[in-house]
Amino acid sequence: MTKIDINNNYWVMDSMPKDNNFFECFKLLKEKSIEVPEGFILTKNIFLSMDAGTRMIMTDREDSYLPPTPIGEKITGTVLSEVVVSKNPGFLPGQKLRSWGQWADYSLIDPESMFPSIVNDTEIDLINYVGILGANGWTAYVGVVETGRAKKGDAFVVSAAAGCTGLLVGQIAKIVGCKVIGIAGTDEKCKLICDSYGFDGAINYKKENVSDQLKELCPEGINVYVDHVGGPIAEAVYENMALFGTLAISGLLDYYSSSKRSPGPKNYDLILMKRLRVEGFFSPDFYHRENEFNPLLKNWIAEKKIKLPFQTTKGLENLPEAYLKLFEGGNIGKVVVEV
Amino acid sequence: MTKIDINNNYWVMDSMPKDNNFFECFKLLKEKSIEVPEGFILTKNIFLSMDAGTRMIMTDREDSYLPPTPIGEKITGTVLSEVVVSKNPGFLPGQKLRSWGQWADYSLIDPESMFPSIVNDTEIDLINYVGILGANGWTAYVGVVETGRAKKGDAFVVSAAAGCTGLLVGQIAKIVGCKVIGIAGTDEKCKLICDSYGFDGAINYKKENVSDQLKELCPEGINVYVDHVGGPIAEAVYENMALFGTLAISGLLDYYSSSKRSPGPKNYDLILMKRLRVEGFFSPDFYHRENEFNPLLKNWIAEKKIKLPFQTTKGLENLPEAYLKLFEGGNIGKVVVEV
Repeated sequence: MTKIDINNNYWVMDSMPKDNNFFECFKLLKEKSIEVPEGFILTKNIFLSMDAGTRMIMTDREDSYLPPTPIGEKITGTVLSEVVVSKNPGFLPGQKLRSWGQWADYSLIDPESMFPSIVNDTEIDLINYVGILGANGWTAYVGVVETGRAKKGDAFVVSAAAGCTGLLVGQIAKIVGCKVIGIAGTDEKCKLICDSYGFDGAINYKKENVSDQLKELCPEGINVYVDHVGGPIAEAVYENMALFGTLAISGLLDYYSSSKRSPGPKNYDLILMKRLRVEGFFSPDFYHRENEFNPLLKNWIAEKKIKLPFQTTKGLENLPEAYLKLFEGGNIGKVVVEV
Repeated sequence: MTKIDINNNYWVMDSMPKDNNFFECFKLLKEKSIEVPEGFILTKNIFLSMDAGTRMIMTDREDSYLPPTPIGEKITGTVLSEVVVSKNPGFLPGQKLRSWGQWADYSLIDPESMFPSIVNDTEIDLINYVGILGANGWTAYVGVVETGRAKKGDAFVVSAAAGCTGLLVGQIAKIVGCKVIGIAGTDEKCKLICDSYGFDGAINYKKENVSDQLKELCPEGINVYVDHVGGPIAEAVYENMALFGTLAISGLLDYYSSSKRSPGPKNYDLILMKRLRVEGFFSPDFYHRENEFNPLLKNWIAEKKIKLPFQTTKGLENLPEAYLKLFEGGNIGKVVVEV
């Protein structure tokens, strides 16, 4: 154990959020030193990745896919950072890495459990390693190709389409050869995904009847849906699924902030009537496949088939504002905090 | 077109059933002749197969997997019958066949659309062709092996376990090497499936807390569930699924009689949290695979690994009573009407 004298600001969970009251529940604290155990590394954070899925570690639910962050503990998430102190022979000071870490100036990383991956790339801006070349890109790939099994000619729909994973999902579905419809919450987002990201159509769920629009845009039914939201949007999609269609569930934003359970779609029986496949998937299950996904994704970046806009919030102290964007439709593309 | 003079009693749909008031909705009529068009065959029914899934063609729902039987028309279902008149070179009088047909003394069969299959077997009682060697057996096989992808050592659960398909599902899951738990509605059924059909455990959902019992019987979680009922039993199963488990949906008895939609399970979000696969399947999708399934199933019959009890109601006029059993928990094994 080595004690490192260092000024570290860090966010802790002061209480469990109800709905999305992050300003009340996150608390910024300071410390003057960090203990680095044998085998661990200490890194200086450059970018903190804001991901809606981490909402599930801010809940009392017993059956979340990851255990909750205990009250008073540092809040965690994916970070892009630089090694400052290494007590592990696999890492050297100065190396940049993407890893699970803390929402703080510095991250203390246990390489055994926190998936650090050295990023060493002179061709692509390293920020992409918390975007296309990170969990969002892998999730999009798995959602379209593996869980979704999308094929050329399929009618393909994605919700939260202007969000980071949604934008990537839509672009990968276009690469596969699908007709791609995005569902988003503003006219600006709908225009953007069609004009700049190659979507074939878009539905503004706040203004339009989603089911009617889907019927018009996918008259032969939807073959693949990548869901990020659940709730009434998912119900409208179920209504319009084609026989033997697939619903690949990547997120259920509608449920994240409720400590109580929300019911499944009222037309759940369509799973039987239409012989649908509904399947959940979750990026930590395929973190170990980075070396398989990233060469593919880098080729697509080079071929200009896939791109991702970043919304960068500067300053650790402004983090709650950045995080809230994910839940209030305020973001287009990837939200990061630059420390 | 040939007109055949014949006394035929037949059931028609007099009104659409609400809940399960079949005695009011089915009406027995008589006719003295039947027109047999070119290409069709007329058969004398021996056994009528009673199947809960046909409840879905007795509904106003627009999105049932099969279109509704129009009011005033003959009610249809699977029959085992003998060819009386053939206007089709593929069929000869005297041949026995399993086919889609009518709930009547005679069936008028269009071989193009009604899946007739000649049954010619001297080793096995032909009634098995509307049981193990028919849609129930194929559904059970697909549910366990293909949609369910059950493996040796899996914790396997089936609802409506003493019903025809449920009994077959449980026995096939045992052949695969699973630990098999059946959910049924009487102590008698629970005892029977364990004592006579090899189930490892049973839960009486009318007397026991299904979720608590599943927790005790499947402490490491359920790997595969073949669902015949939906509703609260399915919710208790969701609660106890293992990570990456499968819910193969073969039926949703809880929803069949409601013209309104019933919501999905309140813990639908577990599909994401546990990365579950939920998939519907439906026997007409694999009717064409009889020659693949039946040799397997016949071997298992010969090896005494699979068997099926029949509950036979005699007399066409007693059909509503037999059909009602499927929805009120009155049956063990296969219900047939002997004409």
